[in-house]
Amino acid sequence: MKLARYTYKSKTSIGKIEGDRVIDLHVTDAWLPDDLTTLLSSPEALSRARQLTVEQAGSVALSEVRLEAPIIHPGKFLALGMNYKDHEAEARRHGVPIPPSQVWFNKQVSCINGPFDDVHHPDVCEKLDYEAELGVVIGKAGRYISEEDALAHVGGYFVANDVTARDWQAKSPTWTLGKSFDTHGPIGPWVVTADEIADPQNLAIRLLVNGEVRQQSSTSLMTYPIARQIAYLSQVMTLQPGDILITGTPAGVGLAMNPPRFLGAGDVVRVEIDGIGHIENRIVPEPRRKAA
Amino acid sequence: MKLARYTYKSKTSIGKIEGDRVIDLHVTDAWLPDDLTTLLSSPEALSRARQLTVEQAGSVALSEVRLEAPIIHPGKFLALGMNYKDHEAEARRHGVPIPPSQVWFNKQVSCINGPFDDVHHPDVCEKLDYEAELGVVIGKAGRYISEEDALAHVGGYFVANDVTARDWQAKSPTWTLGKSFDTHGPIGPWVVTADEIADPQNLAIRLLVNGEVRQQSSTSLMTYPIARQIAYLSQVMTLQPGDILITGTPAGVGLAMNPPRFLGAGDVVRVEIDGIGHIENRIVPEPRRKAA
Repeated sequence: MKLARYTYKSKTSIGKIEGDRVIDLHVTDAWLPDDLTTLLSSPEALSRARQLTVEQAGSVALSEVRLEAPIIHPGKFLALGMNYKDHEAEARRHGVPIPPSQVWFNKQVSCINGPFDDVHHPDVCEKLDYEAELGVVIGKAGRYISEEDALAHVGGYFVANDVTARDWQAKSPTWTLGKSFDTHGPIGPWVVTADEIADPQNLAIRLLVNGEVRQQSSTSLMTYPIARQIAYLSQVMTLQPGDILITGTPAGVGLAMNPPRFLGAGDVVRVEIDGIGHIENRIVPEPRRKAA
Repeated sequence: MKLARYTYKSKTSIGKIEGDRVIDLHVTDAWLPDDLTTLLSSPEALSRARQLTVEQAGSVALSEVRLEAPIIHPGKFLALGMNYKDHEAEARRHGVPIPPSQVWFNKQVSCINGPFDDVHHPDVCEKLDYEAELGVVIGKAGRYISEEDALAHVGGYFVANDVTARDWQAKSPTWTLGKSFDTHGPIGPWVVTADEIADPQNLAIRLLVNGEVRQQSSTSLMTYPIARQIAYLSQVMTLQPGDILITGTPAGVGLAMNPPRFLGAGDVVRVEIDGIGHIENRIVPEPRRKAA
Protein backbone atom coordinates (compact mmCIF):
# COMPACT_ATOMS: atom_id res chain seq x y z
CA MET A 1 0.00 0.00 0.00
CA LYS A 2 1.24 3.49 -0.86
CA LEU A 3 0.37 5.96 1.91
CA ALA A 4 0.70 9.67 1.25
CA ARG A 5 0.24 12.97 3.01
CA TYR A 6 -1.21 15.44 0.55
CA THR A 7 -2.96 18.73 0.12
CA TYR A 8 -6.06 19.15 -2.01
CA LYS A 9 -8.00 22.41 -2.14
CA SER A 10 -5.96 23.83 0.79
CA LYS A 11 -6.76 20.88 3.06
CA THR A 12 -4.00 18.48 4.10
CA SER A 13 -4.89 14.87 4.83
CA ILE A 14 -3.52 11.35 4.51
CA GLY A 15 -4.46 9.07 1.68
CA LYS A 16 -3.93 5.79 -0.09
CA ILE A 17 -2.69 5.86 -3.66
CA GLU A 18 -4.65 3.60 -6.03
CA GLY A 19 -3.32 3.87 -9.56
CA ASP A 20 -3.73 7.52 -10.50
CA ARG A 21 -6.24 8.28 -7.70
CA VAL A 22 -5.90 9.21 -4.03
CA ILE A 23 -8.43 8.03 -1.45
CA ASP A 24 -8.74 10.31 1.59
CA LEU A 25 -8.41 7.78 4.42
CA HIS A 26 -9.44 9.94 7.35
CA VAL A 27 -12.49 11.42 5.64
CA THR A 28 -13.63 8.10 4.18
CA ASP A 29 -13.32 6.29 7.52
CA ALA A 30 -13.37 8.61 10.53
CA TRP A 31 -12.04 5.75 12.68
CA LEU A 32 -8.72 6.04 10.82
CA PRO A 33 -6.17 8.55 12.17
CA ASP A 34 -5.15 11.68 10.29
CA ASP A 35 -1.39 11.05 10.46
CA LEU A 36 0.76 8.29 9.03
CA THR A 37 2.70 7.58 12.23
CA THR A 38 -0.42 6.47 14.07
CA LEU A 39 -1.70 4.59 11.03
CA LEU A 40 1.57 2.70 10.51
CA SER A 41 1.71 1.66 14.16
CA SER A 42 -1.73 0.04 14.11
CA PRO A 43 -2.19 -3.29 12.28
CA GLU A 44 -5.98 -2.88 12.61
CA ALA A 45 -5.93 0.56 11.00
CA LEU A 46 -3.65 -0.65 8.21
CA SER A 47 -5.97 -3.56 7.51
CA ARG A 48 -8.99 -1.25 7.36
CA ALA A 49 -7.14 1.18 5.06
CA ARG A 50 -6.17 -1.71 2.80
CA GLN A 51 -9.78 -2.74 2.27
CA LEU A 52 -10.98 0.64 1.02
CA THR A 53 -11.51 0.70 -2.74
CA VAL A 54 -11.87 3.59 -5.15
CA GLU A 55 -15.37 2.32 -5.93
CA GLN A 56 -16.64 2.61 -2.35
CA ALA A 57 -14.68 5.69 -1.28
CA GLY A 58 -14.39 9.21 -2.61
CA SER A 59 -11.13 9.90 -4.43
CA VAL A 60 -9.34 12.63 -6.34
CA ALA A 61 -6.86 12.49 -9.22
CA LEU A 62 -3.26 12.19 -8.06
CA SER A 63 -2.37 14.87 -10.61
CA GLU A 64 -4.57 17.38 -8.76
CA VAL A 65 -3.01 17.05 -5.32
CA ARG A 66 0.20 18.35 -3.87
CA LEU A 67 2.20 15.57 -2.20
CA GLU A 68 3.70 16.57 1.16
CA ALA A 69 6.42 15.00 3.29
CA PRO A 70 4.70 11.82 4.53
CA ILE A 71 6.12 12.11 8.08
CA ILE A 72 6.64 15.58 9.57
CA HIS A 73 7.32 15.37 13.32
CA PRO A 74 9.30 12.19 13.89
CA GLY A 75 10.91 11.77 17.29
CA LYS A 76 14.17 10.94 15.52
CA PHE A 77 15.65 11.63 12.09
CA LEU A 78 18.80 9.51 12.00
CA ALA A 79 21.13 9.00 9.06
CA LEU A 80 23.91 6.50 8.44
CA GLY A 81 27.21 7.67 6.94
CA MET A 82 29.42 5.69 4.60
CA ASN A 83 27.25 2.61 4.09
CA TYR A 84 27.69 1.60 0.43
CA LYS A 85 30.70 -0.36 -0.74
CA ASP A 86 30.94 1.78 -3.89
CA HIS A 87 30.75 5.03 -1.85
CA GLU A 88 33.41 3.69 0.53
CA ALA A 89 35.69 3.06 -2.43
CA GLU A 90 35.34 6.64 -3.69
CA ALA A 91 35.84 7.98 -0.16
CA ARG A 92 39.00 5.90 0.24
CA ARG A 93 40.37 7.39 -2.99
CA HIS A 94 39.84 10.82 -1.40
CA GLY A 95 41.73 9.81 1.73
CA VAL A 96 38.64 9.53 3.92
CA PRO A 97 39.13 6.72 6.47
CA ILE A 98 36.45 4.00 6.53
CA PRO A 99 34.99 3.74 10.06
CA PRO A 100 35.04 0.32 11.77
CA SER A 101 31.42 0.56 12.94
CA GLN A 102 28.15 2.23 11.95
CA VAL A 103 28.46 6.04 11.94
CA TRP A 104 25.08 7.59 12.75
CA PHE A 105 24.28 11.27 12.80
CA ASN A 106 21.12 13.36 13.00
CA LYS A 107 19.42 15.61 10.56
CA GLN A 108 17.23 18.05 12.49
CA VAL A 109 13.52 17.31 12.20
CA SER A 110 13.05 20.93 11.15
CA CYS A 111 14.81 20.25 7.81
CA ILE A 112 12.13 17.84 6.56
CA ASN A 113 10.80 18.96 3.19
CA GLY A 114 8.17 17.81 0.69
CA PRO A 115 9.00 15.41 -2.14
CA PHE A 116 8.60 18.07 -4.85
CA ASP A 117 9.31 21.24 -2.88
CA ASP A 118 12.16 23.68 -3.42
CA VAL A 119 15.45 23.09 -1.65
CA HIS A 120 17.19 26.27 -0.49
CA HIS A 121 20.75 27.11 -1.37
CA PRO A 122 21.78 29.12 1.71
CA ASP A 123 23.89 32.25 1.25
CA VAL A 124 26.32 30.92 3.85
CA CYS A 125 26.93 27.60 2.01
CA GLU A 126 29.42 27.23 -0.82
CA LYS A 127 29.35 23.48 -1.43
CA LEU A 128 25.82 22.17 -1.70
CA ASP A 129 25.61 18.45 -2.49
CA TYR A 130 23.10 15.60 -2.84
CA GLU A 131 22.88 12.06 -1.47
CA ALA A 132 20.30 9.55 -2.73
CA GLU A 133 19.06 7.36 0.11
CA LEU A 134 16.51 4.70 0.95
CA GLY A 135 14.40 5.82 3.92
CA VAL A 136 12.81 3.61 6.57
CA VAL A 137 10.00 4.56 8.93
CA ILE A 138 9.58 2.57 12.13
CA GLY A 139 6.10 1.07 12.61
CA LYS A 140 6.53 -0.87 15.86
CA ALA A 141 8.42 0.31 18.95
CA GLY A 142 11.33 -1.71 20.28
CA ARG A 143 14.57 -1.90 22.22
CA TYR A 144 17.14 -4.72 22.00
CA ILE A 145 15.69 -5.84 18.68
CA SER A 146 17.45 -8.86 17.17
CA GLU A 147 18.58 -8.78 13.57
CA GLU A 148 16.11 -11.58 12.85
CA ASP A 149 13.15 -9.57 14.19
CA ALA A 150 14.28 -6.19 12.90
CA LEU A 151 12.35 -5.90 9.65
CA ALA A 152 9.11 -6.61 11.52
CA HIS A 153 9.63 -3.19 13.16
CA VAL A 154 9.65 -1.39 9.79
CA GLY A 155 6.38 0.31 8.89
CA GLY A 156 7.45 1.26 5.39
CA TYR A 157 9.98 2.71 2.99
CA PHE A 158 10.42 6.00 1.17
CA VAL A 159 12.87 7.93 -1.01
CA ALA A 160 15.14 10.59 0.55
CA ASN A 161 17.74 13.10 -0.51
CA ASP A 162 20.23 13.76 2.29
CA VAL A 163 21.03 17.26 1.04
CA THR A 164 24.37 18.33 2.51
CA ALA A 165 26.29 21.59 2.90
CA ARG A 166 29.76 20.05 2.50
CA ASP A 167 31.64 23.10 3.78
CA TRP A 168 29.54 23.14 6.96
CA GLN A 169 29.79 19.36 7.29
CA ALA A 170 33.58 19.65 7.24
CA LYS A 171 33.62 22.29 10.00
CA SER A 172 32.74 19.74 12.66
CA PRO A 173 33.45 16.01 13.10
CA THR A 174 29.85 15.57 14.19
CA TRP A 175 28.54 16.78 10.76
CA THR A 176 25.36 18.02 12.48
CA LEU A 177 25.00 21.52 11.04
CA GLY A 178 26.03 20.64 7.49
CA LYS A 179 23.19 18.11 7.38
CA SER A 180 20.47 20.23 8.94
CA PHE A 181 19.75 23.37 6.93
CA ASP A 182 16.04 24.11 6.61
CA THR A 183 14.56 22.32 3.53
CA HIS A 184 17.55 19.93 3.26
CA GLY A 185 15.54 16.82 4.09
CA PRO A 186 13.12 16.13 1.21
CA ILE A 187 11.34 12.78 1.67
CA GLY A 188 8.55 10.93 -0.11
CA PRO A 189 6.78 10.78 -2.45
CA TRP A 190 4.85 8.49 -0.05
CA VAL A 191 5.51 5.58 2.30
CA VAL A 192 5.28 2.14 0.71
CA THR A 193 4.25 -0.31 3.44
CA ALA A 194 6.80 -2.96 4.32
CA ASP A 195 4.65 -5.87 3.05
CA GLU A 196 5.00 -4.55 -0.52
CA ILE A 197 8.79 -4.52 -0.54
CA ALA A 198 9.83 -8.15 -0.93
CA ASP A 199 13.52 -7.44 -0.33
CA PRO A 200 14.65 -3.97 0.77
CA GLN A 201 18.25 -5.07 0.12
CA ASN A 202 17.65 -5.50 -3.60
CA LEU A 203 16.33 -2.15 -4.83
CA ALA A 204 17.82 -0.15 -7.68
CA ILE A 205 18.54 3.44 -6.59
CA ARG A 206 19.61 6.35 -8.77
CA LEU A 207 19.99 10.12 -8.67
CA LEU A 208 19.90 12.54 -11.57
CA VAL A 209 20.90 16.20 -11.72
CA ASN A 210 19.15 18.01 -14.58
CA GLY A 211 18.54 14.61 -16.19
CA GLU A 212 22.16 13.45 -15.96
CA VAL A 213 22.66 10.24 -13.95
CA ARG A 214 25.07 10.88 -11.06
CA GLN A 215 24.36 7.98 -8.71
CA GLN A 216 23.26 4.52 -9.84
CA SER A 217 23.51 1.60 -7.49
CA SER A 218 21.60 -1.02 -5.55
CA THR A 219 20.69 -1.36 -1.90
CA SER A 220 22.37 -4.78 -2.14
CA LEU A 221 25.67 -2.90 -1.81
CA MET A 222 24.97 -1.67 1.73
CA THR A 223 27.76 -2.52 4.16
CA TYR A 224 25.24 -2.70 7.02
CA PRO A 225 21.85 -3.93 5.84
CA ILE A 226 18.74 -2.38 7.38
CA ALA A 227 18.15 -5.25 9.82
CA ARG A 228 21.65 -4.79 11.22
CA GLN A 229 21.10 -1.01 11.49
CA ILE A 230 17.93 -1.48 13.53
CA ALA A 231 19.53 -4.11 15.78
CA TYR A 232 22.52 -1.84 16.44
CA LEU A 233 20.56 1.35 17.10
CA SER A 234 18.16 -0.46 19.40
CA GLN A 235 20.98 -1.53 21.70
CA VAL A 236 21.19 2.16 22.55
CA MET A 237 17.73 3.62 22.21
CA THR A 238 14.08 2.73 21.98
CA LEU A 239 12.94 3.05 18.39
CA GLN A 240 9.44 4.48 18.25
CA PRO A 241 6.73 4.55 15.57
CA GLY A 242 7.36 7.44 13.19
CA ASP A 243 11.13 7.51 13.78
CA ILE A 244 12.86 7.77 10.42
CA LEU A 245 16.21 6.36 9.37
CA ILE A 246 17.97 7.11 6.14
CA THR A 247 20.36 4.37 5.28
CA GLY A 248 23.40 5.74 3.48
CA THR A 249 24.24 6.88 -0.04
CA PRO A 250 26.02 5.09 -2.92
CA ALA A 251 28.93 6.41 -5.00
CA GLY A 252 28.63 9.49 -7.18
CA VAL A 253 28.20 12.43 -4.82
CA GLY A 254 29.26 15.80 -6.22
CA LEU A 255 32.12 16.14 -3.74
CA ALA A 256 33.77 12.98 -5.10
CA MET A 257 33.68 14.05 -8.77
CA ASN A 258 36.86 15.25 -10.40
CA PRO A 259 36.68 18.20 -10.19
CA PRO A 260 33.88 18.34 -7.59
CA ARG A 261 30.52 19.53 -8.93
CA PHE A 262 28.22 21.20 -6.44
CA LEU A 263 24.59 22.22 -6.80
CA GLY A 264 23.54 25.71 -7.83
CA ALA A 265 20.29 27.61 -8.12
CA GLY A 266 18.12 26.20 -10.90
CA ASP A 267 19.47 22.66 -10.70
CA VAL A 268 16.83 19.93 -10.43
CA VAL A 269 17.71 16.85 -8.40
CA ARG A 270 15.70 13.68 -8.82
CA VAL A 271 16.06 10.53 -6.68
CA GLU A 272 14.44 7.29 -7.82
CA ILE A 273 14.11 3.93 -6.09
CA ASP A 274 12.50 1.09 -8.03
CA GLY A 275 9.36 -0.20 -6.35
CA ILE A 276 8.88 2.99 -4.33
CA GLY A 277 8.85 6.03 -6.62
CA HIS A 278 10.76 9.27 -7.01
CA ILE A 279 11.18 12.70 -5.48
CA GLU A 280 12.34 15.77 -7.41
CA ASN A 281 13.45 19.09 -5.97
CA ARG A 282 14.61 22.34 -7.52
CA ILE A 283 17.46 24.26 -5.95
CA VAL A 284 16.54 27.90 -5.30
CA PRO A 285 18.44 30.71 -3.61
CA GLU A 286 17.69 30.97 0.11
CA PRO A 287 14.88 33.50 0.52
CA ARG A 288 16.68 35.23 3.37
CA ARG A 289 14.27 36.50 5.93
CA LYS A 290 14.21 37.78 9.47
CA ALA A 291 12.98 35.79 12.42
CA ALA A 292 9.23 35.22 12.68
CA MET B 1 8.73 32.08 37.49
CA LYS B 2 9.57 28.39 38.01
CA LEU B 3 7.47 26.21 35.72
CA ALA B 4 7.35 22.48 36.33
CA ARG B 5 5.82 19.35 34.90
CA TYR B 6 4.80 17.11 37.76
CA THR B 7 2.71 14.15 38.79
CA TYR B 8 0.39 14.22 41.79
CA LYS B 9 -1.95 11.32 42.58
CA SER B 10 -1.18 9.67 39.21
CA LYS B 11 -2.10 12.77 37.21
CA THR B 12 0.57 14.69 35.30
CA SER B 13 0.12 18.42 34.79
CA ILE B 14 2.10 21.64 34.58
CA GLY B 15 2.48 23.96 37.48
CA LYS B 16 4.08 27.04 38.92
CA ILE B 17 6.33 26.67 41.95
CA GLU B 18 5.62 29.18 44.72
CA GLY B 19 7.89 28.60 47.69
CA ASP B 20 7.16 25.04 48.84
CA ARG B 21 3.83 24.80 46.96
CA VAL B 22 2.86 23.92 43.38
CA ILE B 23 -0.10 25.59 41.66
CA ASP B 24 -1.69 23.46 38.92
CA LEU B 25 -1.83 25.99 36.07
CA HIS B 26 -4.05 24.13 33.63
CA VAL B 27 -6.65 23.14 36.23
CA THR B 28 -6.68 26.56 37.89
CA ASP B 29 -7.12 28.39 34.59
CA ALA B 30 -8.48 26.20 31.80
CA TRP B 31 -7.40 28.82 29.26
CA LEU B 32 -3.78 27.93 30.02
CA PRO B 33 -2.24 25.07 28.01
CA ASP B 34 -1.25 21.73 29.57
CA ASP B 35 2.33 21.71 28.25
CA LEU B 36 5.26 24.01 28.88
CA THR B 37 6.23 24.46 25.22
CA THR B 38 2.93 26.14 24.40
CA LEU B 39 2.99 28.15 27.62
CA LEU B 40 6.53 29.42 27.07
CA SER B 41 5.72 30.52 23.52
CA SER B 42 2.79 32.72 24.58
CA PRO B 43 3.50 36.02 26.36
CA GLU B 44 -0.21 36.27 27.22
CA ALA B 45 -0.28 32.84 28.85
CA LEU B 46 2.92 33.57 30.76
CA SER B 47 1.45 36.81 32.04
CA ARG B 48 -1.72 35.04 33.20
CA ALA B 49 0.29 32.30 34.87
CA ARG B 50 2.39 34.90 36.65
CA GLN B 51 -0.65 36.54 38.23
CA LEU B 52 -1.97 33.38 39.91
CA THR B 53 -1.31 33.31 43.64
CA VAL B 54 -1.42 30.46 46.12
CA GLU B 55 -4.21 32.31 47.90
CA GLN B 56 -6.56 32.34 44.90
CA ALA B 57 -5.60 29.00 43.36
CA GLY B 58 -5.52 25.45 44.64
CA SER B 59 -2.02 24.16 45.38
CA VAL B 60 -0.24 21.11 46.74
CA ALA B 61 2.99 20.73 48.70
CA LEU B 62 6.07 20.42 46.49
CA SER B 63 7.21 17.57 48.73
CA GLU B 64 4.17 15.53 47.70
CA VAL B 65 4.62 15.70 43.93
CA ARG B 66 6.95 13.88 41.60
CA LEU B 67 8.79 16.31 39.34
CA GLU B 68 9.01 15.16 35.70
CA ALA B 69 11.17 16.28 32.79
CA PRO B 70 9.74 19.74 32.05
CA ILE B 71 9.92 19.31 28.25
CA ILE B 72 9.36 15.83 26.78
CA HIS B 73 8.89 16.01 23.01
CA PRO B 74 11.12 18.84 21.76
CA GLY B 75 11.67 19.06 18.01
CA LYS B 76 15.41 19.28 18.68
CA PHE B 77 17.70 18.25 21.52
CA LEU B 78 21.05 19.79 20.59
CA ALA B 79 24.22 19.82 22.65
CA LEU B 80 27.44 21.79 22.34
CA GLY B 81 30.77 20.04 22.77
CA MET B 82 33.91 21.55 24.29
CA ASN B 83 32.55 24.93 25.36
CA TYR B 84 34.25 25.76 28.69
CA LYS B 85 37.75 27.14 28.82
CA ASP B 86 38.58 24.91 31.82
CA HIS B 87 37.24 21.77 30.03
CA GLU B 88 39.22 22.72 26.90
CA ALA B 89 42.37 22.88 29.01
CA GLU B 90 41.81 19.38 30.42
CA ALA B 91 40.97 18.07 26.94
CA ARG B 92 44.16 19.59 25.56
CA ARG B 93 46.18 17.81 28.25
CA HIS B 94 44.63 14.55 26.97
CA GLY B 95 45.62 15.31 23.39
CA VAL B 96 42.08 16.17 22.23
CA PRO B 97 42.26 18.92 19.59
CA ILE B 98 40.18 22.05 20.27
CA PRO B 99 37.80 22.65 17.36
CA PRO B 100 37.91 26.05 15.63
CA SER B 101 34.12 26.49 15.63
CA GLN B 102 31.07 25.38 17.60
CA VAL B 103 30.71 21.57 17.61
CA TRP B 104 27.05 20.63 17.90
CA PHE B 105 25.64 17.13 18.21
CA ASN B 106 22.27 15.63 19.03
CA LYS B 107 21.03 13.65 21.95
CA GLN B 108 17.98 11.67 20.84
CA VAL B 109 14.72 13.03 22.21
CA SER B 110 13.97 9.51 23.47
CA CYS B 111 16.75 9.78 26.08
CA ILE B 112 15.04 12.59 28.02
CA ASN B 113 14.62 11.63 31.66
CA GLY B 114 13.12 13.15 34.82
CA PRO B 115 15.18 15.31 37.20
CA PHE B 116 15.17 12.66 39.97
CA ASP B 117 14.69 9.47 37.96
CA ASP B 118 17.12 6.57 37.67
CA VAL B 119 19.76 6.64 34.95
CA HIS B 120 20.48 3.25 33.42
CA HIS B 121 23.95 1.78 33.19
CA PRO B 122 23.63 -0.30 30.02
CA ASP B 123 25.22 -3.77 29.88
CA VAL B 124 26.92 -2.79 26.64
CA CYS B 125 28.63 0.33 28.10
CA GLU B 126 31.88 0.20 30.05
CA LYS B 127 32.65 3.89 30.55
CA LEU B 128 29.64 5.77 31.85
CA ASP B 129 30.32 9.44 32.56
CA TYR B 130 28.57 12.66 33.57
CA GLU B 131 28.56 16.24 32.23
CA ALA B 132 26.94 19.11 34.15
CA GLU B 133 25.28 21.55 31.76
CA LEU B 134 23.09 24.63 31.66
CA GLY B 135 20.02 23.97 29.51
CA VAL B 136 18.11 26.49 27.41
CA VAL B 137 14.59 26.11 26.05
CA ILE B 138 13.55 28.22 23.09
CA GLY B 139 10.41 30.30 23.62
CA LYS B 140 10.15 32.23 20.36
CA ALA B 141 10.78 30.83 16.86
CA GLY B 142 13.44 32.37 14.68
CA ARG B 143 15.93 32.04 11.83
CA TYR B 144 18.88 34.36 11.19
CA ILE B 145 18.72 35.63 14.75
CA SER B 146 21.35 38.24 15.58
CA GLU B 147 23.50 37.88 18.67
CA GLU B 148 21.89 41.05 20.00
CA ASP B 149 18.36 39.61 19.68
CA ALA B 150 19.25 36.05 20.67
CA LEU B 151 18.36 36.03 24.37
CA ALA B 152 14.87 37.34 23.55
CA HIS B 153 14.27 33.92 21.93
CA VAL B 154 15.01 32.06 25.16
CA GLY B 155 11.95 30.90 27.07
CA GLY B 156 13.85 29.70 30.11
CA TYR B 157 16.70 27.77 31.64
CA PHE B 158 17.10 24.40 33.36
CA VAL B 159 19.74 22.02 34.73
CA ALA B 160 20.93 19.05 32.64
CA ASN B 161 23.26 16.11 32.92
CA ASP B 162 24.62 15.11 29.52
CA VAL B 163 25.16 11.49 30.55
CA THR B 164 27.65 9.91 28.15
CA ALA B 165 28.78 6.38 27.30
CA ARG B 166 32.43 7.30 26.57
CA ASP B 167 33.27 3.99 24.87
CA TRP B 168 30.33 4.41 22.49
CA GLN B 169 31.11 8.10 21.99
CA ALA B 170 34.62 7.16 20.89
CA LYS B 171 33.38 4.63 18.31
CA SER B 172 32.18 7.37 15.98
CA PRO B 173 33.35 10.93 15.27
CA THR B 174 29.71 12.01 15.31
CA TRP B 175 29.32 10.94 19.00
CA THR B 176 25.62 10.30 18.37
CA LEU B 177 25.10 6.89 19.94
CA GLY B 178 27.29 7.46 22.99
CA LYS B 179 25.11 10.45 23.87
CA SER B 180 21.73 8.87 23.27
CA PHE B 181 21.12 5.86 25.51
CA ASP B 182 17.62 5.76 26.95
CA THR B 183 17.48 7.68 30.29
CA HIS B 184 20.77 9.53 29.58
CA GLY B 185 19.15 12.95 29.30
CA PRO B 186 17.89 13.97 32.77
CA ILE B 187 16.64 17.58 32.78
CA GLY B 188 14.89 19.82 35.27
CA PRO B 189 13.97 20.25 38.03
CA TRP B 190 11.83 22.87 36.28
CA VAL B 191 12.24 25.68 33.76
CA VAL B 192 13.09 29.08 35.24
CA THR B 193 11.71 31.73 32.90
CA ALA B 194 14.29 33.93 31.22
CA ASP B 195 13.16 37.13 32.98
CA GLU B 196 14.35 35.68 36.31
CA ILE B 197 17.91 35.00 35.19
CA ALA B 198 19.62 38.39 35.15
CA ASP B 199 22.76 37.07 33.46
CA PRO B 200 22.89 33.48 32.18
CA GLN B 201 26.65 33.93 31.68
CA ASN B 202 27.30 34.36 35.38
CA LEU B 203 25.86 31.27 37.05
CA ALA B 204 27.79 28.95 39.36
CA ILE B 205 27.52 25.32 38.21
CA ARG B 206 28.70 22.21 40.03
CA LEU B 207 28.36 18.45 39.92
CA LEU B 208 28.75 15.98 42.77
CA VAL B 209 29.09 12.22 42.71
CA ASN B 210 28.03 10.66 46.03
CA GLY B 211 28.52 14.06 47.63
CA GLU B 212 32.05 14.60 46.28
CA VAL B 213 32.44 17.73 44.14
CA ARG B 214 33.72 16.77 40.67
CA GLN B 215 32.83 19.80 38.57
CA GLN B 216 32.75 23.37 39.88
CA SER B 217 32.76 26.27 37.47
CA SER B 218 30.82 29.23 36.15
CA THR B 219 28.93 29.80 32.94
CA SER B 220 31.15 32.89 32.58
CA LEU B 221 33.82 30.48 31.31
CA MET B 222 31.89 29.48 28.17
CA THR B 223 33.90 29.92 24.99
CA TYR B 224 30.71 30.60 23.03
CA PRO B 225 28.08 32.35 25.17
CA ILE B 226 24.44 31.38 24.67
CA ALA B 227 23.63 34.38 22.46
CA ARG B 228 26.42 33.36 20.07
CA GLN B 229 25.18 29.75 20.09
CA ILE B 230 21.66 30.81 19.10
CA ALA B 231 22.92 33.18 16.40
CA TYR B 232 25.14 30.46 14.91
CA LEU B 233 22.55 27.67 14.97
CA SER B 234 19.91 29.92 13.47
CA GLN B 235 22.03 30.57 10.40
CA VAL B 236 21.33 26.92 9.61
CA MET B 237 17.94 26.05 11.04
CA THR B 238 14.75 27.57 12.34
CA LEU B 239 14.72 27.35 16.11
CA GLN B 240 11.25 26.52 17.35
CA PRO B 241 9.50 26.84 20.72
CA GLY B 242 10.33 23.84 22.87
CA ASP B 243 13.66 23.13 21.16
CA ILE B 244 16.26 22.49 23.84
CA LEU B 245 19.95 23.28 23.79
CA ILE B 246 22.48 22.15 26.37
CA THR B 247 25.43 24.41 26.38
CA GLY B 248 28.61 22.48 27.19
CA THR B 249 30.27 21.15 30.32
CA PRO B 250 33.13 22.51 32.47
CA ALA B 251 36.25 20.66 33.60
CA GLY B 252 36.12 17.62 35.85
CA VAL B 253 34.48 14.86 33.82
CA GLY B 254 35.34 11.32 34.93
CA LEU B 255 37.20 10.58 31.69
CA ALA B 256 39.70 13.36 32.40
CA MET B 257 40.55 12.23 35.94
CA ASN B 258 43.83 10.45 36.58
CA PRO B 259 43.07 7.60 36.51
CA PRO B 260 39.63 8.00 34.88
CA ARG B 261 36.69 7.36 37.22
CA PHE B 262 33.50 6.18 35.59
CA LEU B 263 30.03 5.78 37.07
CA GLY B 264 28.76 2.49 38.44
CA ALA B 265 25.48 1.17 39.78
CA GLY B 266 24.55 2.87 43.05
CA ASP B 267 26.35 6.13 42.35
CA VAL B 268 24.26 9.26 42.82
CA VAL B 269 24.99 12.21 40.54
CA ARG B 270 23.77 15.67 41.47
CA VAL B 271 24.00 18.76 39.24
CA GLU B 272 23.39 22.22 40.73
CA ILE B 273 23.12 25.62 39.09
CA ASP B 274 22.68 28.65 41.34
CA GLY B 275 19.45 30.49 40.65
CA ILE B 276 17.86 27.49 38.98
CA GLY B 277 18.01 24.43 41.25
CA HIS B 278 19.37 20.89 41.12
CA ILE B 279 18.70 17.48 39.63
CA GLU B 280 19.86 14.23 41.19
CA ASN B 281 19.90 10.80 39.59
CA ARG B 282 20.90 7.37 40.83
CA ILE B 283 22.74 5.03 38.47
CA VAL B 284 21.06 1.61 38.25
CA PRO B 285 21.85 -1.44 36.13
CA GLU B 286 19.96 -1.46 32.83
CA PRO B 287 16.79 -3.45 33.35
CA ARG B 288 17.31 -5.37 30.13
CA ARG B 289 14.04 -6.19 28.49
CA LYS B 290 12.71 -7.37 25.16
CA ALA B 291 11.03 -5.13 22.63
CA ALA B 292 7.54 -3.93 23.51
